[in-house]
Parts: sequence; structure tokens; C-alpha cells
Amino acid sequence: MNPNSELGPALQALIVRAEQALDRRLPPAAQSPAELHHAMRYAVLGGGKRLRPLLVYAAAHALGENGVSLDAAACAVELIHAYSLVHDDLPAMDDDAMRRGRPTCHIVYGEAMAILAGDALQALAFEILANDTTGRIDAATAIGMLHALGRACGAEGMAGGQALDLAAVGRKLTLAELEHMHACKTGALIRASVQLGALVAHADTGTLQALDRYADALGLAFQVRDDILDVEGESAVIGKTAGKDAAADKPTFPSIIGLDASRARLAELTAAALGAIEPLGEQGVLLQELAHYAAHRAY
Amino acid sequence: MNPNSELGPALQALIVRAEQALDRRLPPAAQSPAELHHAMRYAVLGGGKRLRPLLVYAAAHALGENGVSLDAAACAVELIHAYSLVHDDLPAMDDDAMRRGRPTCHIVYGEAMAILAGDALQALAFEILANDTTGRIDAATAIGMLHALGRACGAEGMAGGQALDLAAVGRKLTLAELEHMHACKTGALIRASVQLGALVAHADTGTLQALDRYADALGLAFQVRDDILDVEGESAVIGKTAGKDAAADKPTFPSIIGLDASRARLAELTAAALGAIEPLGEQGVLLQELAHYAAHRAY
Repeated sequence: MNPNSELGPALQALIVRAEQALDRRLPPAAQSPAELHHAMRYAVLGGGKRLRPLLVYAAAHALGENGVSLDAAACAVELIHAYSLVHDDLPAMDDDAMRRGRPTCHIVYGEAMAILAGDALQALAFEILANDTTGRIDAATAIGMLHALGRACGAEGMAGGQALDLAAVGRKLTLAELEHMHACKTGALIRASVQLGALVAHADTGTLQALDRYADALGLAFQVRDDILDVEGESAVIGKTAGKDAAADKPTFPSIIGLDASRARLAELTAAALGAIEPLGEQGVLLQELAHYAAHRAY
Repeated sequence: MNPNSELGPALQALIVRAEQALDRRLPPAAQSPAELHHAMRYAVLGGGKRLRPLLVYAAAHALGENGVSLDAAACAVELIHAYSLVHDDLPAMDDDAMRRGRPTCHIVYGEAMAILAGDALQALAFEILANDTTGRIDAATAIGMLHALGRACGAEGMAGGQALDLAAVGRKLTLAELEHMHACKTGALIRASVQLGALVAHADTGTLQALDRYADALGLAFQVRDDILDVEGESAVIGKTAGKDAAADKPTFPSIIGLDASRARLAELTAAALGAIEPLGEQGVLLQELAHYAAHRAY
């Protein structure tokens, strides 16, 4: 199944744009150290929803910015996401052999190379953000973007959330604990994606705050939908093993509050995301579409 | 054995300064996610030569800069170094159980937490550089520093060098291949350390180039000395298992060109490092001391 097929033509075109930008910025497969480059490209260019680059573009679009200076930010957040998946899939972590319907990076390239590929992808994300080749992003804006991305990736963001996730296996979490874990593990980078797009577009403080609320609600909605799909979905459609979370004794929204309450929470979060960007009006159309997609996707 | 004891009082004081700066910038052990924070602090604060922070301070000192705005750069390079050691020590990589006379991070905190701690330390390095709390570093300089650090960490730098190292095990390398591997694996971050100090001090292009030559020679000299110590040293003194490289069938300078030629190469590199900074005169005294230390250390 094509992950793009649930999105409209504007967002599909932006996926193509992001993938071309990623392809250009990843090191060439033919160049030494070739195996590392292969592993990095495999981890990034093997499909995926490209939600984070889309959020960069959509946030900027809502503020009237569509220029080429967005591409570096779109690449940076996807490189971070890709590296996190490679490390999460490692045997010592979630031990996943399949991702996006293909063998995971460490299955193809071995554990050592997968660890290194993830490390190099994280470095590349920061390097790209610090190297605006368009000359359109002033240094102060770039520093703000680098700071936002750094914070989102670290112990108070994505890495911290993954640590909370590991500590949660086999333990009974409250809803608040579960939501805090997701706010760190996936929410921080989703928030940073929206922020990066908004910073390139020179958003004012009020707009940045509204977009943070949008991103926080959307990020959590995306995760609730994931958990619901894990219960309802078919493995062939979602591209990974259905029922895997329950089998791994991972806390999920359905396991903590039940399926009906999960659906209600999803509707609430979607409304919150849409409400936060109401002041943007028609300009926020791509952000609106992504909020609907996060809540209703079958994949 | 105290790793500081081979250095003069000025550099020893700078080690204390770097360690205090690191302690302040690492997340508090008592704060959630506590286990991740513990693992990060264990990886960074457990001793070590602090060569990279010292190079930041020494390069800036040679240009008349000693201010507090250097501390972020000193921390950033040490955080990167510490993360690389945590990941290098993993079972899938070099599988080392001891480092600096203590159990390695994954032995104490488990593999998953060690992978995450390394990931979070890398992110923290970039976050710190993007968050100059002194207000003394202009945004353009900070961007230059972030770009230099990003490049040094990635596929063309440290991670790439580690990939070359993995590919070299059990294979016969030429001297040029061995030196290229080290230039990436450890040389790139050593060069970046000197660059960061020089950038804070607003070095001109000619000085930056001279300092690059110094750093490249010193970085390689440090590695040649490491290989010689692995043959000659006692485990108790060097803090890891002597003869380990040979046992692991890792290519080393002595194994490729012999011990005498390795000593000659070390003298040559030391002379090159000292020659590169001759134009700095008396001001380069700390850089000189570090070049001598890299070549003659017994630890």
C-alpha cells in the first residue's frame, strides 16, 4: 500500500519534494565509507509517511512561506526520525525485524552499522540545519532552529521519551504517564517540525504558541490512532505486525482506557488541533488536512 | 592513576573548569527520566583525559581569548567524545567491558540505556552550542561552530571513521589507509575542537589553517602513541587491557610499520604539530604542551 494515498495532491507533491531533498543531501552510496552510506540511505529513503517534513512545509505554508529554504528543515526532522527508528528497532531496544514492509536496518547491515548509521544521521540533521545553502535564512533564525531541534532530540525530548517507554514495559501506566511518554518520545520532534517551518516563515510569538498547541494535539492524536490501529488493523495494511504492542506488554491507550475512550480521546485531540489553528483561516489548509490524516489514517 | 598528572597546572586547572561546566550542563540525576540522566552523567563524568576541551581552551588562549563563552564549546566536544565511546564499547561494536578503569556504560545501565544515553549526549552537544547563555557569541560564529561540529561527527568524520575501523578488522591496511581511518575516527573531532576554540576567538583564515595542520598532526600523534602504549604499556597504567588491539586483530601503527618506524612517525608528527603553531609564538604555550603530552604520555 502506498502511504501517500490517504493524502491530497498538495501534500503528496510535498512528499516528493522532501524525498528529493533527502536524496540530494544524503551521502552518495558509491562514496567511501560506502557501507555506512548505504545503511543511511536505506534507513531514510525506504518510504514512510514523511509526517515531519510535511509539518515543516504545512506550518510555513500557513504563514505564506513555500520557498526552497524550507527543504533543509524538512530534511533535518526526517533524518532525526529515521535515525530514531533505526535505533529503536535494534535487538537491545524493541528488537524489530520488519519496518515499512522491509527488513530493518540492522537486519540488512548488521547491528554495528545500524548504530553508526543512526549516529551519522543525527549528526547530518544538525549539519544540514547549520549549512543553509540558500542564503535566505539569517543566522539568528538558524540558531533558533538548531536549538529547537537539539532540545527535541535529547533527554528532555525524544531520547528521554524512549527511556520512559523502555521503563514502562510490563508496568501499569496512568493515562497521564502514557501521554507524557508520547509527548516526549514522538511529540517533541513533531512540535519541533512545526516550529522549524514557522521559524523559517518568521512567525510571531502568538502564532508560534498556537502552532505548539496544534502540534502537541496532533502528535498525541497520531499516537492514539497508532494504538487503535494496532488493535484493529491488519498487518498487511499497517506494514508491521498487528497486535504487537499487546504481545510485547507495552502500555497503549486501548489497554489503559479501552477502545471506546481511546476513540473519544482521539476526537478530542483532533478538535484541539483544529481549534488551535482556526485563527490562521484558509491558509492553514495543509495543517488541517494533516490533523484529519493523523486521526483517520488506516495506515 | 590520575590522568591529569602528566599535565602542567594551567591545563589541570582547565580540566577542572571543563568538568564543572559539564556537570552544570548535564541533566540532574534526580530528575526524570532519571536512569537516562544517570547513564549520561556516568558516561561523561567518569574521568578521561579531557583532551578535546583542553584543545578548545588552548586554541582560544593562543589567540588571547579565555572567557566564559568557551565553556559551551568545551562541553560540546567532550559530550560528543563521550557518546562515541559509549557506542564504540557496545557489544555489537568493540564489545568493551572496561573503560577508564570502570565498567562501561552498557555494563552498568544495559545496552538499551547506553544506546539512548549516547544518542542524548550527541543531541545535548548541539543544543548547548546553539544556546549561548553568555550572550558573547554572535549568531554567525555560532552557526560556523555548529557546522564544524556537525561535519566532524557525521559520515565524513567520526561515524565514518568508525565504519572504516569496523571494516578494517582482520584486513591488512596500508599506512595511508590506517592514517585516513584515524583522521576520520578521532582526527575530525580533534580538529573541530581546535576550530571551535579558534572561532570563539575570531581567528583569521590563515590562523585557522595553521591550527588545522596542528590539530591533524596532533590527532594522529595521539593515536600513534596509543598504539605504541598498547604494545608497551601495562594494563594498570593505561586503564584498559594492554595488547587488546593485537588480540582483536585490529590494524595498528606497530603492526603495519613496526615499533621503531612508529616512534619515528610519532616524532615527525609532533614536529609538524609544533611547527604549525610556531607563528603564534609564546601565546601558543598550551597548544605546545598538549602536543608534547600527546606524544609522550604514559597513559
